[in-house]
Amino acid sequence: MKIVIAPDSFKESLTALEVANAIETGFKKIFPHAQYIKVPMADGGEGTVQSLIDATQGCLISTSVIAPLGNTISATWGLSGDRNTAFIEMAAASGLHLVPPEQRNPLKTTSFGTGQLIKAALESGIKKIILGIGGSATNDGGVGMLQALGGKFFDQEQREIQLGGAALQQLSAIDLTNLDPRLKAVELQIACDVTNPLCGTNGASAVFGPQKGATVEMVQQLDHALYHFSSIVEQQYHLNIREQPGSGAAGGMGAGLLLLPNAQLQSGVDIVINAVNLTRQVESANLIITGEGRMDSQTAQGKTPAGVAKVAKHFNKPVIAIVGSLKEDYEVIYDIGIDAVFPILRQVENLETTLKKSRENLISTAQNVARLWQLIKVNQ
Amino acid sequence: MKIVIAPDSFKESLTALEVANAIETGFKKIFPHAQYIKVPMADGGEGTVQSLIDATQGCLISTSVIAPLGNTISATWGLSGDRNTAFIEMAAASGLHLVPPEQRNPLKTTSFGTGQLIKAALESGIKKIILGIGGSATNDGGVGMLQALGGKFFDQEQREIQLGGAALQQLSAIDLTNLDPRLKAVELQIACDVTNPLCGTNGASAVFGPQKGATVEMVQQLDHALYHFSSIVEQQYHLNIREQPGSGAAGGMGAGLLLLPNAQLQSGVDIVINAVNLTRQVESANLIITGEGRMDSQTAQGKTPAGVAKVAKHFNKPVIAIVGSLKEDYEVIYDIGIDAVFPILRQVENLETTLKKSRENLISTAQNVARLWQLIKVNQ
Repeated sequence: MKIVIAPDSFKESLTALEVANAIETGFKKIFPHAQYIKVPMADGGEGTVQSLIDATQGCLISTSVIAPLGNTISATWGLSGDRNTAFIEMAAASGLHLVPPEQRNPLKTTSFGTGQLIKAALESGIKKIILGIGGSATNDGGVGMLQALGGKFFDQEQREIQLGGAALQQLSAIDLTNLDPRLKAVELQIACDVTNPLCGTNGASAVFGPQKGATVEMVQQLDHALYHFSSIVEQQYHLNIREQPGSGAAGGMGAGLLLLPNAQLQSGVDIVINAVNLTRQVESANLIITGEGRMDSQTAQGKTPAGVAKVAKHFNKPVIAIVGSLKEDYEVIYDIGIDAVFPILRQVENLETTLKKSRENLISTAQNVARLWQLIKVNQ
Repeated sequence: MKIVIAPDSFKESLTALEVANAIETGFKKIFPHAQYIKVPMADGGEGTVQSLIDATQGCLISTSVIAPLGNTISATWGLSGDRNTAFIEMAAASGLHLVPPEQRNPLKTTSFGTGQLIKAALESGIKKIILGIGGSATNDGGVGMLQALGGKFFDQEQREIQLGGAALQQLSAIDLTNLDPRLKAVELQIACDVTNPLCGTNGASAVFGPQKGATVEMVQQLDHALYHFSSIVEQQYHLNIREQPGSGAAGGMGAGLLLLPNAQLQSGVDIVINAVNLTRQVESANLIITGEGRMDSQTAQGKTPAGVAKVAKHFNKPVIAIVGSLKEDYEVIYDIGIDAVFPILRQVENLETTLKKSRENLISTAQNVARLWQLIKVNQ
């Protein structure tokens, strides 16, 4: 029997590999001689770099970058075991968690640090970059990122504009001729699961601005600034970055990235599935086990278990999910190919204690799923 | 497919029948055409009367009785659907919950009310009484119960002694000639899962006295009183009630009951298994589902799932447990015939919210167990 264990991480408690290890431990108590293939998964969100490193026997690299408010911090990104692929999470350099709540102000925050991580990756000689753009503190259309990579953004007096979302209002001309030339030889896969356009009521500023600290007035100001930025792009490059689905992701980072060569916005989990060769493993498996920290109706919208189930169902394989918690609205997951789901909670305890017990609860649940599996085999 | 659903109640949230109904609801989503046999179970503890009523289409009857401290209360007991069997819980008339904590004093508390319930049952013309003796407030050797049924207990001056454990010290002679004569025609099954003797360091007073409000001095006084009582019994009836395993149950109620004709101390769950005809149903079943509110290593010590599993394994049937919570030390349950266990918790929530969601969580868990069952059938 070949069992593929392909879970996401359980946020705040276990990495995807740790989850996979615990599930394997539980299953092995009942099926010690089965073949277990552990594939740490992710969907482009938090934990993606760690999972991709674990899946490829890669490593973390630390790079000094400029945080959203201009201070210097140390940020990590991942390099695959074969050193061909870089794994970057925008949040590592430009994340909301890097800005204290009282200082959150997307007029000022910049995505410059994310550009620095891309530059560091280019310097390591990779051929592909996988970039997750969730959790950002910025609303600058990715212009900071482009500046870090050599792009020049001028105001009417040919001075380079300041960092941050507000400064885009002064933008008059863009010069991308000095963009890092290595970008042309690199494939840039951007994990993006939102379809918001750059501007308007569904745009970056209106939808994501408030959670980054924008007031109603700031949202309006930022929306105008992004619109202005996209107009200049359209004038100079005849490129409509404003309407592209996903251009509004991460404060307009989705739009800014479209100015780089070979950049593609894709479903995060599809990028990961491809990066970890999940399909090849699933094809010959008898059982697929996936999981995530919290399963709910959102899971069906391109989260890791949805991606894993899609691959599994392509080969008509059974899929069991083992999850940290299970919200009332979860049943839609049956429609996307998950056959049964088991939450790992065993006792009424507070969150802190529960998180500490994740590993043992996972082992116990996996063991009982395996027991049921075996039981039914015996009784038929 | 025939599925027998035989759970205990989930304390503080659902009766055993409600648990069985919820499990059936979840299973029916996947196996709508299976045959479901719901057998509300119990082990002689709290919830036993309700389960036996539900299992036999019986009803509750309310009777005025004397509470442990002498006040009059209304207590309920059960009558089977065929009106042949009475179901009584001692706690209904003589329970610790009937005495406010600050008034708990086993020198004074009496089991008289439990005798009154037995009397009421006799008056209804039953042929068998099933009596659960857990949760009592008393330490009177069951003498109060015997008094209510016509027994006379005299001091040296031929006056009837007072109610309560302390008064036994004045006991000089017993007269059981006026015991209700209907007792002779009735089988009395006493659900008793403790093996404590009447007296000594493992006796009723030392082990159970403190939780009923006895101080160290009271424990000594009560232990002497029970010893004295048993000595008088021995003198008059040549009956050693002191060493009998279980005679120390319920403040010596186990010993006092041995003075009644046709009384037998038995395992609670065995009594219930017999009363609800579980064996006949299990014999032809494909799957047995049991459960309880909290599963732990104690479960293996004669709790409901242990009893159900024993019957099932006699016929080599698979047993799945669905439980409210699952303690770390639970794995011993595998040794007693439970094949797999699934706790129903789905989210980290406080106890109150969790208890409110018991039914929906049960349905969800049962559905997923059924889904796994079906899945494996399909994939073999």
